Amino acid sequence: MKLLQEKIMREGKVLSDDVLKVDAFLNHQIDPVLMQEIGKEFAKRFKDEKITKIVTIESSGIAPAVMAALEFGVTVVFARKRKSLTLQDNMYIAKVYSYTKQETNEISISKQYIHEDDRVLIIDDFLANGQAALGLMNLVQQAGATVAGIGIVIEKAFQDGGSKLRESGVRVESLAEIASLNNGTVRFVEHAVAEVK
Amino acid sequence: MKLLQEKIMREGKVLSDDVLKVDAFLNHQIDPVLMQEIGKEFAKRFKDEKITKIVTIESSGIAPAVMAALEFGVTVVFARKRKSLTLQDNMYIAKVYSYTKQETNEISISKQYIHEDDRVLIIDDFLANGQAALGLMNLVQQAGATVAGIGIVIEKAFQDGGSKLRESGVRVESLAEIASLNNGTVRFVEHAVAEVK
Repeated sequence: MKLLQEKIMREGKVLSDDVLKVDAFLNHQIDPVLMQEIGKEFAKRFKDEKITKIVTIESSGIAPAVMAALEFGVTVVFARKRKSLTLQDNMYIAKVYSYTKQETNEISISKQYIHEDDRVLIIDDFLANGQAALGLMNLVQQAGATVAGIGIVIEKAFQDGGSKLRESGVRVESLAEIASLNNGTVRFVEHAVAEVK
Repeated sequence: MKLLQEKIMREGKVLSDDVLKVDAFLNHQIDPVLMQEIGKEFAKRFKDEKITKIVTIESSGIAPAVMAALEFGVTVVFARKRKSLTLQDNMYIAKVYSYTKQETNEISISKQYIHEDDRVLIIDDFLANGQAALGLMNLVQQAGATVAGIGIVIEKAFQDGGSKLRESGVRVESLAEIASLNNGTVRFVEHAVAEVK
């Protein structure tokens, strides 16, 4: 997705060979027009998948997920990272290890909001080692629902999350695929670079 | 806002005289069409305030804030509830006590994303005792920016947050104002009830 790649080049900050900071438009400050375009792009890519529900995880997944949900005409459910006082019974729960934060969170979704006949599109901001996406798939599978696809805003293609997910048979669409962040430079994977030209 | 009141009557759950659960469309599952209408309503109410930035707090503030930002043509910044590894320097920080969760969180916003000349609209999902809104105002004021208004999706008008904020001189607009939750029934404040008829 050209608009997103350009935004990453212009406003992303490479902090190390592993870390791309996109706090300027996705993870802290949010550009709503870009989110709307991202929502439309997910809707285009998964238009034949008969999506009935979008599942994401707080907090940075919410903006792109809600914009996509608006396009699909479905609701979003966002997984919480820990239980709150008013949300403790009747939950699907999975454990997710965050390499960035070096901690394990329980993520949870109320059983009320995913059903067996749902075709779920999982949306998240980043895909690196795949832990969050695998946790979300686990929640959807606990409900007996179908994971119809995974939509990622930015995939760090040099980490193994993408291949783990694709090997499990699920369709993964990433709107920007980063081949490497070496030497402080963002390099996109080949077909994505071609798209920009 | 009639659409929101109807949604609360239909899908909200009164858990006690103090607690209204709206996990069906705002705090866990999100109805994106309703969020879009909420964004439009905020844009209408604050249209003369020359808003340049929207500030909210993760997680449930993000959806209404992003939709409002789209209408205003500005960006959103969401305050984080604790520091992450890639976001620790150069932050405005305030303490917020949550009565619901019975814990104090540090909320923070990067100094990069609020400037002295910003006219900020603060948006949040709920207003009860006002702690979160006061914390967000504090962050905006630390930046030397102007709090041009506070937009709330659901105000529990029987708690004192609304009067605390209004007494401080800031304009507060709540799209649904709840007079009481006694006896398991949602009662809206007078002018809101009149609006429904």
